[in-house]
Amino acid sequence: MEDTKQEFSLETELENWPTYTFDKRKEIFYSLPRHEAEELFLSLNGSNQAELFQELPGYERRSWIRLLAPDDVADLIQELPKDYQSQALELLDPVTRNEVNALLAYAEDEAGGLMNSRFARLRPEMRVSEAISYLRAQSKAQIETIYYAYVLDQHQKLMGVVTLRELFNTFPTKVISEIMTTDLVTILDTLDQEEIGKVFSQQNYLALPVVDGDNVMKGIITVDDVVETMQEDATEDIQKIGGSEALGEPYLDISLFSMIKKRAGWLMVLFVGQLFTASLMKMFEGEIEKAVVLAMFIPLVISSGGNSGSQATTLIIRAMALGEVRMRDWWRVLMRELGSGLGLGLILAILGFIRIMVWGDAYGEYYVYIALSVSVSLVGIVLWGTVTGSMLPFALKKVGLDPAAASAPFVATLVDVTGLAIYFSVAHFFLKGILL
Amino acid sequence: MEDTKQEFSLETELENWPTYTFDKRKEIFYSLPRHEAEELFLSLNGSNQAELFQELPGYERRSWIRLLAPDDVADLIQELPKDYQSQALELLDPVTRNEVNALLAYAEDEAGGLMNSRFARLRPEMRVSEAISYLRAQSKAQIETIYYAYVLDQHQKLMGVVTLRELFNTFPTKVISEIMTTDLVTILDTLDQEEIGKVFSQQNYLALPVVDGDNVMKGIITVDDVVETMQEDATEDIQKIGGSEALGEPYLDISLFSMIKKRAGWLMVLFVGQLFTASLMKMFEGEIEKAVVLAMFIPLVISSGGNSGSQATTLIIRAMALGEVRMRDWWRVLMRELGSGLGLGLILAILGFIRIMVWGDAYGEYYVYIALSVSVSLVGIVLWGTVTGSMLPFALKKVGLDPAAASAPFVATLVDVTGLAIYFSVAHFFLKGILL
Repeated sequence: MEDTKQEFSLETELENWPTYTFDKRKEIFYSLPRHEAEELFLSLNGSNQAELFQELPGYERRSWIRLLAPDDVADLIQELPKDYQSQALELLDPVTRNEVNALLAYAEDEAGGLMNSRFARLRPEMRVSEAISYLRAQSKAQIETIYYAYVLDQHQKLMGVVTLRELFNTFPTKVISEIMTTDLVTILDTLDQEEIGKVFSQQNYLALPVVDGDNVMKGIITVDDVVETMQEDATEDIQKIGGSEALGEPYLDISLFSMIKKRAGWLMVLFVGQLFTASLMKMFEGEIEKAVVLAMFIPLVISSGGNSGSQATTLIIRAMALGEVRMRDWWRVLMRELGSGLGLGLILAILGFIRIMVWGDAYGEYYVYIALSVSVSLVGIVLWGTVTGSMLPFALKKVGLDPAAASAPFVATLVDVTGLAIYFSVAHFFLKGILL
Repeated sequence: MEDTKQEFSLETELENWPTYTFDKRKEIFYSLPRHEAEELFLSLNGSNQAELFQELPGYERRSWIRLLAPDDVADLIQELPKDYQSQALELLDPVTRNEVNALLAYAEDEAGGLMNSRFARLRPEMRVSEAISYLRAQSKAQIETIYYAYVLDQHQKLMGVVTLRELFNTFPTKVISEIMTTDLVTILDTLDQEEIGKVFSQQNYLALPVVDGDNVMKGIITVDDVVETMQEDATEDIQKIGGSEALGEPYLDISLFSMIKKRAGWLMVLFVGQLFTASLMKMFEGEIEKAVVLAMFIPLVISSGGNSGSQATTLIIRAMALGEVRMRDWWRVLMRELGSGLGLGLILAILGFIRIMVWGDAYGEYYVYIALSVSVSLVGIVLWGTVTGSMLPFALKKVGLDPAAASAPFVATLVDVTGLAIYFSVAHFFLKGILL
């Protein structure tokens, strides 16, 4: 389209925003005419807004922060350094300030912190024609949507919902309480954002009402807010699965020092775990001296356990995050993983057996026994890796930790240590009196 | 709320649905009164709908499939076995059948396959009052939303958009072409669902128009449809990062045989890769015989490389999926990872050095040289792991493969093999003439 160049360049800027340096961002922001700068500002997320907001001269801040809806103001303020926050709150009109303060009382990642407190309200005794005019009038106000209208009693308790579309579809003289939908899906104000994501992804809602424990309506959450948080949750899980703390910032934004800090923690823990392999190997030093050939297959054997464990833990972590697998399913998962582990272990054992038999003599005269040792321990180690990897997320969740902390490298390290013990025990059994 | 028991039990069923066996699902579905069974059916996703649909007696199928909007029918049909598909299409009224056929012509994961072809249309010369009445009348039709209305010229080309809210806010005698928004964000009908997810998560749209290359409007995509596909995309990426094919079905739904098949492929590839470690170890057999102490640290050294590589690859894969890092950023990423890899390598090297020095004599009289060999190779291997892990997703994308195929276990295996070579080379340098 010819007349869309402006919007498309805005979209390009937004798409490129995460890859820009801070100086480049400022440069673009200041180079735009006010109207376009406002469009850009409104489209950025809270942390990018906060970054620009802090750069603005003091006398300009008020008009910029007042552009935003209360939930967006709350997001922006949460991203500001602590000592700037009250200063920013002072810039708001008293009504909005109260609303923002109420939102800030909730944690950022629970329903109360995500919701918009400005929604369309109707009284149950209104007629449909009145309700339509009333919503029409409210369309000028700063409310999130007029397409869903919530019916509240005199104590602000939620009684039902009507859509504007339903109002259009009904006789104008009917009364709201007759036509409203009363079997409602509601979200409790303390519900955590990951759970909210599940509710929205399981069913196709555009907006849901947030209520407190007494069913008093507090605000609404629209699906477009949830999209952002869902991406964030998936990112956190993926980063943890990869064996790092969640970065919390775009990859190219985070400073090198912070990034090393977030990554070094887990790597050090894993390294300390791996030190046990050195201790174990030390215990089996005698065996290795007698049969150096055993050492040849150590990397192969232990990493097969690590790989199958990584696989299992990742599948379970994701299935838990999606609500496909719950705590009480642990037994079913265990049964499945015993089956998978056995099957996968046998497949690798056969491959390993063939490979050693083919090379044969290269591994000395007792190569058949070596092949047996490697294959049998592969079955044991893969089975053990699969079971450990699948059960660890349950164990972590049980003690109140994040299942995603059972990262692929964590499981791999755990299985490496025990894998060595399995390998040397099996080798002992087959090679006792021959090589050992 | 007292009158909400029904809806809440529906919600519970939906939440539990993925964990039910097929028999349990049928039992619940048939036990519900028609109205509730319809609610349930409408709320299920395409594959669960298809499963129940196939179980229905032939004479009931028509009324069930006709409950659905064209885009949902298309989803259901895509989930049916090939030979049932045309039979199901026959059950539709001719208008819907045409629409569904048009949708089926698109791949399931591109915009054309996700969109709803029934949207509210306005002509540019309409007056606002006419437009409101027209939308009001359309509110009874099976269109996705009346809250966004698209202005099309006589060739069905998209000219602009107005929201119902804007119409409410304007003088009734104004003409649509004067008030419509013309700087539109549109989605091309061939755009892939991952890209669509990015557009929606970067900005807060509730719906976007889908157009073909000539700007002819084809349909709309609403954010609630995107939520589902975004979860699917994240799941696929996570499963691949964990070193398995994407399962494509909920964990507890997939048959044990299919699951082993999806997991065995990668494990076998990785195993074959790991076989190179055995070959490499064979090459260094002489060194190990002379200095068995070297073997002690093999698992420690190579898995440190694997862990740092897993970390790096996971961070980059996710950053790419979110659009935070693009192909042209590879140089910046390389520079960052050289820094991170060096930093992380040094940290682990110091830990390793201290550990060996503390145990000292246990590793023989030349333990200082052993400590040096281990530490220096740690720096090299971690640096190498980090760089390999971060660059591999770029390389895969460059040759047209999915960057997520650079799974944590894949990178770990790659780095294991090269890590051994680095370790023995460094050891050679420090121990030449002493132990070797």
